[in-house]
Amino acid sequence: MEIKQIDGGVTSALGFRAASVAAGIKYKGREDMALVFSDYPCVLAATFTQNVFAAAPVLYDREILKNGNPVHAVIFNTGIANAGTGLRGRETNLFMAAEMARELNVHPDEVLTGSTGVIGYQLSEEPIYEGVKKLKERLDRGPDTDRRVAMAIMTTDTVPKTAACSFEVDGKTVTVGGMSKGSGMIHPDMATMLSVTTTDAKIDQYVLQELVKESVDDSFNMISVDRDTSTNDTYIVLANGQSGVKIEKDTKSYELFREALRFVCISLAKQMAADGEGATRMMEVIVTGAKTHEDARILARSVTASNLVKAMVYGSDANSGRILDALGYAGVDFDPDLVDVTLLHEDEMMLLVQDGVVCRIDEEKATEWMKEKRVSFLCELKQGREGATAWGCDLTHDYVNINGDYRS
Amino acid sequence: MEIKQIDGGVTSALGFRAASVAAGIKYKGREDMALVFSDYPCVLAATFTQNVFAAAPVLYDREILKNGNPVHAVIFNTGIANAGTGLRGRETNLFMAAEMARELNVHPDEVLTGSTGVIGYQLSEEPIYEGVKKLKERLDRGPDTDRRVAMAIMTTDTVPKTAACSFEVDGKTVTVGGMSKGSGMIHPDMATMLSVTTTDAKIDQYVLQELVKESVDDSFNMISVDRDTSTNDTYIVLANGQSGVKIEKDTKSYELFREALRFVCISLAKQMAADGEGATRMMEVIVTGAKTHEDARILARSVTASNLVKAMVYGSDANSGRILDALGYAGVDFDPDLVDVTLLHEDEMMLLVQDGVVCRIDEEKATEWMKEKRVSFLCELKQGREGATAWGCDLTHDYVNINGDYRS
Repeated sequence: MEIKQIDGGVTSALGFRAASVAAGIKYKGREDMALVFSDYPCVLAATFTQNVFAAAPVLYDREILKNGNPVHAVIFNTGIANAGTGLRGRETNLFMAAEMARELNVHPDEVLTGSTGVIGYQLSEEPIYEGVKKLKERLDRGPDTDRRVAMAIMTTDTVPKTAACSFEVDGKTVTVGGMSKGSGMIHPDMATMLSVTTTDAKIDQYVLQELVKESVDDSFNMISVDRDTSTNDTYIVLANGQSGVKIEKDTKSYELFREALRFVCISLAKQMAADGEGATRMMEVIVTGAKTHEDARILARSVTASNLVKAMVYGSDANSGRILDALGYAGVDFDPDLVDVTLLHEDEMMLLVQDGVVCRIDEEKATEWMKEKRVSFLCELKQGREGATAWGCDLTHDYVNINGDYRS
Repeated sequence: MEIKQIDGGVTSALGFRAASVAAGIKYKGREDMALVFSDYPCVLAATFTQNVFAAAPVLYDREILKNGNPVHAVIFNTGIANAGTGLRGRETNLFMAAEMARELNVHPDEVLTGSTGVIGYQLSEEPIYEGVKKLKERLDRGPDTDRRVAMAIMTTDTVPKTAACSFEVDGKTVTVGGMSKGSGMIHPDMATMLSVTTTDAKIDQYVLQELVKESVDDSFNMISVDRDTSTNDTYIVLANGQSGVKIEKDTKSYELFREALRFVCISLAKQMAADGEGATRMMEVIVTGAKTHEDARILARSVTASNLVKAMVYGSDANSGRILDALGYAGVDFDPDLVDVTLLHEDEMMLLVQDGVVCRIDEEKATEWMKEKRVSFLCELKQGREGATAWGCDLTHDYVNINGDYRS
């Protein structure tokens, strides 16, 4: 039995509905509020930014996670991040949750919040007040809704990001689906910008939280667009149990659920890396032969986060010295004279560095390979058995355009 | 008595001469080898990159520093970094030192080496062999020589970087002068790309090394262009004692020498930040009120190294949320609700963030101030007495141009 990829997102799992609306928070002519709702109470697991300037919704959601009670919904707004907004920002956030809860006829503590957009602006209550009513009315299911809701939480993203899969246990189907947004200020530390995954699996909170931590470490925490960890990073998983399948440790269904969650997280993470601000291509860095998994993770991320490596991927220039440089300053101790670096391209490969020494290569062919949408480097340390993969994107003129003039 | 800034560089101190030559290492039509020489044996202090893939000259110089004997010269080449070049690279480096030593009639262990340029290319022996002869013949002194030698070690730099100052002790003059290069791959960790300071002070090796460490921490280690720590970072100080002034701890002359060394280091570091690859302006970030000096240093550097802050400086957009974000993810614990951020402009200032909350500001005036060559932010933590200053530059289209197509 295997997990099966399906076309869907946050409403693929049983009992989940979603909605989006153009509330006029900041943007004009596009939807900017979204709601994910379960008719049944959900077990909650989540991870948040480690940034000291955590946004109002992050501070609020952390409290809800801490109290451990079941929840029903997550409401999002885009345009304004509600960070750097002090007490007034925390009050507006509470207003958003409370108004949505009133409409949904649930307790305010059962509605999580998520905000994204510019830091340092206050949210107005008026558009929220109108928005929550429409969100309630428009609740719906299906792939079209999934995509539309994923679009409503975008900021500088150029495409909506959704993923879903399912697996069978004793004739019953368990589904895991999710969405995320994120394109700039992406260098997640515990979680990504904004992402929610829903599932109809029945699972205990502590088991889910443990799995979420693990999945996030190998997915969202392995992508980087610009090394800037956001104030709003939030990843939420809601499990409402409607499949009737109980996920318990040390069972086959546990392994399947783990794989399904990992599939959704990695798929969303890769979509975010590929849609990095201004990006023209995705970069994948695979590190093998490290002494520890943590070493492998740090090394892979160091390469994907390097401005010089990112600029060379933009220029399709296989300047492998920059990869060595980024491995070398990652803060991990290893023997440089053992390291191989290989450029991967479909079924072919080209050795760029052998035993720590840069090779003479077919530059034309390397440049051709590096013009593809996805550029993959394999870094073999040959000093242990651990590996990790990180994803990033190139550094382009459009990144500078987007961020030199974001607020205007 | 105070230190006095003078027009000069590596030959300002007594007994030092320098030379440069177009040896044809890689570039055409420009000088690409340089020599700094003292007729008298010098006490040596130095700091080097922490990168695991340290270049051949770094590995070599470290050994010389370790054996502790006096030295006479430093020879530089630009165009090829001699990093990622394995055993053959180490042999060529030794060849460069030995040939120069033979010409200068000193021992090979008395000649340090420094290389900068592209990683992963082998140096040819032929141009070095010819170059060292001419370097010996051309040894000279004076501000013109200082500038010319500083130009010969440049890569993507657009201006040569030199600094010098002097002070008097009992009617005798002590001079400290130096040069450096560095524009990309700048995020020094213990030292900068390539820099040498000469002085005619008489000083014990351990006292000098201690002072060098301290000066470097507050100067070169506080600048960032792209967060990429180079494989070749090297900072060398040569002291030949020809002023006849002995610098001993706990004396007035020690304090003056410390100030002079610090002046030269900070001046060179700021010149490097201002000349960052593609930069149109320099950014200065002053952190005060931190609990420890280390906290202040980490926070100041986190802001100057943030791509999002750098892009906003390019766009002259006072988006202070990004400064909060970069302070928040620096890994330092502090109370966000106490933080003020101020934009400084000559004798005026504008509060951007008060007690952790982003202020409404005169955007037009802020943009005008941020169009100056130097943009300064003051971050007041108000939770301790320690401070630090970091320097960086903006992230521009030209940075992407330079690094998307460096090797061709």
